[in-house]
This record gives sequence, structure tokens and C-alpha cells, in this order.
Amino acid sequence: MTIGFTHETLGQRVVFAPKDAADATSAEVAGLGARRVMVIAAPAERTLADRVCADVPVALVHDDVRMHVPVENAERARAAAAESRADALLSIGGGSTTGLAKAVALTTGLPIVAVPTTYAGSEATPVWGLTSGNEKQTGVDPRVLPASIVYDAALTTSLPVELSVASGLNAMAHCVDSMWAPHSDPLDIALSAEGARALTTGLPRVVAAPEGLEGRQDTLFGAYLAAVAFASAGSGLHHKICHVLGGRYDLPHAQTHAVVLPHVLALNAPNAPDADRRLSQAFGSDTALDGLEALQTQLDAPRALRDLGMRRADLPDAVAAILPVAPPSNPTPVTEDNVAGLLQRAWEGAPPR
Amino acid sequence: MTIGFTHETLGQRVVFAPKDAADATSAEVAGLGARRVMVIAAPAERTLADRVCADVPVALVHDDVRMHVPVENAERARAAAAESRADALLSIGGGSTTGLAKAVALTTGLPIVAVPTTYAGSEATPVWGLTSGNEKQTGVDPRVLPASIVYDAALTTSLPVELSVASGLNAMAHCVDSMWAPHSDPLDIALSAEGARALTTGLPRVVAAPEGLEGRQDTLFGAYLAAVAFASAGSGLHHKICHVLGGRYDLPHAQTHAVVLPHVLALNAPNAPDADRRLSQAFGSDTALDGLEALQTQLDAPRALRDLGMRRADLPDAVAAILPVAPPSNPTPVTEDNVAGLLQRAWEGAPPR
Repeated sequence: MTIGFTHETLGQRVVFAPKDAADATSAEVAGLGARRVMVIAAPAERTLADRVCADVPVALVHDDVRMHVPVENAERARAAAAESRADALLSIGGGSTTGLAKAVALTTGLPIVAVPTTYAGSEATPVWGLTSGNEKQTGVDPRVLPASIVYDAALTTSLPVELSVASGLNAMAHCVDSMWAPHSDPLDIALSAEGARALTTGLPRVVAAPEGLEGRQDTLFGAYLAAVAFASAGSGLHHKICHVLGGRYDLPHAQTHAVVLPHVLALNAPNAPDADRRLSQAFGSDTALDGLEALQTQLDAPRALRDLGMRRADLPDAVAAILPVAPPSNPTPVTEDNVAGLLQRAWEGAPPR
Repeated sequence: MTIGFTHETLGQRVVFAPKDAADATSAEVAGLGARRVMVIAAPAERTLADRVCADVPVALVHDDVRMHVPVENAERARAAAAESRADALLSIGGGSTTGLAKAVALTTGLPIVAVPTTYAGSEATPVWGLTSGNEKQTGVDPRVLPASIVYDAALTTSLPVELSVASGLNAMAHCVDSMWAPHSDPLDIALSAEGARALTTGLPRVVAAPEGLEGRQDTLFGAYLAAVAFASAGSGLHHKICHVLGGRYDLPHAQTHAVVLPHVLALNAPNAPDADRRLSQAFGSDTALDGLEALQTQLDAPRALRDLGMRRADLPDAVAAILPVAPPSNPTPVTEDNVAGLLQRAWEGAPPR
């Protein structure tokens, strides 16, 4: 069957500069012709930010960074950008820092150079988010996609191993789920497979040598690809399930992903032979599920939703909440029975099947 | 070893619309907000162009298309664009047609929607070319990268099988050579591997069923990826060799590529284990060379430079011309001995090694 699809490739410069963030960042800033740069970096990243900015024409360092980008914070940052007559934004930090830069870019159109210090991946997407009270608003706008990313693995060596693994497995979930997500196309699938390959190489090395650059750079590369693919492909069954579980039972985000992912893969692999083959090649295993399980064992990933605090009594409610949001495009048609079975096994930590 | 690299991803919409070029094209033109479209299509493509443009606001159809884009032709087309007050360019045809649209975009900044009818790949690159007498000038400019590509496999079914295979193997050479070209980076390598995979699937099906859309779409997809990777990675040893052979002895372009490629792969594979592994996965073979040889046999590709008209007496001259242009980054260091051996085997059609 020959299938039509539309893929929008987003223009962006991506620089991998191990141990060389300062030079690479000043080059990217110069490439934009910027002369008054607003640096966004949380206080915890201040020392690191000063190092990265050594040769950047800094107009202002803004350190009022909060999780989930509260709209008041965004407004203050926008006002600071205007007052300092900034002509570019330089974000140095994790997802919240990138998120604040995006909020400023959204209304000002200022270009962003993003220097990530985690594996969140926001720097590779045109998705923005703002919170107002308990309400989270998200959107897609080409203006918020950073013009350049500078990845320096040395900036991530201080990220604790446990957090690195959780963040890396979250990226892996993007890769696996992008294989069958509603807007998945052959380019997303190729990028996802490559991301899975890089994460499979990188994460065990991060665990074995947290200060080493090689595992860190592979993990950054994998997380970058995962974000690019996921932004294009959208949420598949796995992300829908995790969104329900996280939202209704307040389960921890990354750990929930780690527990659920093998079960969704086990459900879909028999009806997604191309995904199975590509992922098994990426994992270097006989089947995709074998490879993912081996990796999770190696990384000592959590196995059971009950260990994350979910109650058995909530399972029927979860099934009922998942069914209406399950994507019709899922390779294995989603039924009450198979979702109930999947959740039961994920809850007790039984082998996926 | 952790290596730095810079990859510039170029923003572009890519639409695969089998049997649906007209709808997809009018949607892309509308997405640009264009109301006065200059259509560029050679007389041979006129009927096809009229079908594709059924719902496009056409200001002018320009059919004065020549090979290699002579500068006088470019000037006439630019004048026609100005006179018709065109606000977008729509090229429908092969590489020369896309090339003329690029020449107009270069000076006018008008956006291009490209509807390719061959596997040339120019539509996916920011490279332009103009000829003045015997002089060819080329350059890179972001303005000439088409804003959108519409690939409709049905537009390529009239491309003869032999030409399709030659063009497809040319794309395969881009994929293989991008594995070790001077500016090759991990993204180029991933895209090249995916391109090789698509061409390996597609080309035998084009031969088996030239009117079928599936082999044609896979080949278009592979040629697209090959062009994206090659534009970023630059010319590796293979392209340097073919450029010398084509330029000095007037050998046919695509056939020369087909003959030389296995020999360059045989030279480099022992020192490029990652490329070897990725290509063998793409080909579904034990080694990359086995896979390429099997594909070329299946496609009945030419085997010997002597069959293409090269004289044995020219071999020493060719070696001397290749040595100074061989990329220092080539995985196997290039020596007079190994280039002489390679050319000798390629000339007589001996097995690569």
C-alpha cells in the first residue's frame, strides 16, 4: 500500500560541541548577528551560564525561572527583554528554562539559542507551554523553535544518574511511541529508530561512567531525535496511557513511562512488524521487546505501577479513562480487555505480553 | 571518542501524495498565500503540468527549460517572472526544471513549490547551478531551497526503467558516499541509511512493475533522503572519482557511478565498520558489499568502465588526477597503489575488494 503523508522539517542549526559550549555558543550568537543577548538561566545554573557566556555580548541575565512557566513569570521576562532591548535569547538550563525563553519568543519573535543541560528535548520542538493557576495551555508556533541548539555533553555530567536514566527512558518512550502515533510518517520512524539506537548505546554508559562524555553525548543525541520525531508524530497509545495515569493518580512522570512502555510495545509489536524490526535493530536484539527489557533491566528501571503508589482499586477507573483517548490508529485495536490486561500486568510488574 | 559536529536542518515541507499531485499542489500553493503562480515546465511535461495545476492560480506557464540552466535562460525566466508579477514559482519536471526555478528564486526570492518527475533530488537541496558557455557555476543559497515538495509517484511511472535505475543508483551513491564524506555527521548517516533502505526496497519493484506506485514511491523517498544527506555531507571519495572520470573521459554519469560504487565501498568498509553495519542492515545482507552487489546484479547495473568507453591507457592519468582531490577524511587512507588497483578492477569489471 502506498500511503500519502506530509512531513514538515523544521529549520534549525544543531551543534554538538563536547567541552566547547562557550565557543560554540558565541559562534551561534554571532551567526544571528545578535549584539544584546538576554541570557535566561536559573540561579542553580548561574556559574555554568557565566562560563558558557564568556564571549557573548550579554545585555541581561534573567534568572527568574519556574517550573511549567507560570504566565506571570513569562510576562516579567517579556518586560525584561523589552527594557533591555535584547535582540536574541540565550537559554541555558533544562526544560523550564527553555520553556521561559520560548514564552518570550512567542510574543517578541526574538531568536533563541538553546544550551540544554538535561535530556528534556524541548529545544528541538516548536511547542510552548504556559500555566495560569492550575491550567496549562500549550501551543505550537514556529517562532518558539530555537534557531540553534548547542549540545555540550560536559554540561550534563552533573545530572544525577537516576535522573539521567529517567529522562533518557522518557526520550525512549517518545521514540517507541512515535513508531505508531497518529501523525507518524516514514521520516519520524527513521528518526525514532536512530534515537532509540543512540539511547541504547548512551544510557548504559551514563550509568557506568556518569562523568564520561560519550554516554552523555549519545544520550543527548538520542533525546534530540526523540523530540524531533515526537513533535511531528504526536502522542500514541503509550503517551495517552501515561497522561491518564499521571493526571488521575499523581504518579511520577518518568517512572510511569518506564513501567508502561514494554507493555505497550508487547501489545503493538505483533501488528507493527516494521517497528518491531527497526527497534530490534536499534537495540541489537532478536525482538524489540527483548531489547527494551534487557535495557530496562540493565538500567534498573522500575517495573510495577504498584511500586509507584497506584492502588489496585483504581485499575477499572484507569481503563475507563484510557479507552476514549486511545488513538484509532494504534496498530493493535484497543479494547477494554486488552487495556485491562495491560494495566493489570503493568500494575503487578508481570512480564509484558 | 566524542566528536563535535554541526548539522543545519533546512526547513521544508515534504508531501508524499500518490495519485494526488493536483490537490496537494494547490494546497501547498495556498499555504504560501500565492495568487499569481509562475509555472515552470518543459514542453514534454505540459500535459502533466496542466493536470497538476488544475486548481492553482496560474499567472504564466514558462516552458523554456534547458539542461544545466544556461544563464540566458535564467535571465529570460527572471524577466518573465517580473513581467507577470508572479508571487510564487511552481516547477514541474526533472532536475533542469527545478534548476531553472532555483535560478529565478536566487535573484527574486520567490518561494518554490517543486513537483519532481524524476529521482534527481535537486528539490531537496539549497544548491543552484548556472552555465555560461562551457563554464558551470554553482552555489548554495537558502532562498533556492523549495518551500514545499510534492512527490506523486504516479508522475514518475512514465520514466523508463533503465533511466529510473540509473537515477536510483545515483541516489544510492549519495547515500553510501555520505557515510564518510568530509562533512558527514550522525544525522547524515542516519538519513543515508534510511535512503539506502528505501532504494533497496524500491528499485527492484520499479523494475518488476514499472507502472506500480509502490516501488516508485519508495524510490522517490530514497532519492529525497539521499539528496538531503548529500547536500549536508558533501562529496566523498566516490564522487571525487566519478567527477574526475566523467570530466576527463566523458563517461556517462549514472553508469559511471554504478560501476565505481562497489569498489569504493570495498575499499572503505574495512575501516568504516559503522557504515558497513548500517548499510548491511539497510540492504538486508551480511555485509554492505554483499548487499550492494546483490542489488546491482538484480538491477542489471553496468560493471566495467571499459564497457562505458574508457581506455585502459587512461588509467594512470586518472589515478594522477584523483590523488590530489581524494578527501583526507576517507576512512581508508588513499594511496597511489590502492586507487590504481581500484580503477584497474573497475575498468575490467573485476570483483571489488
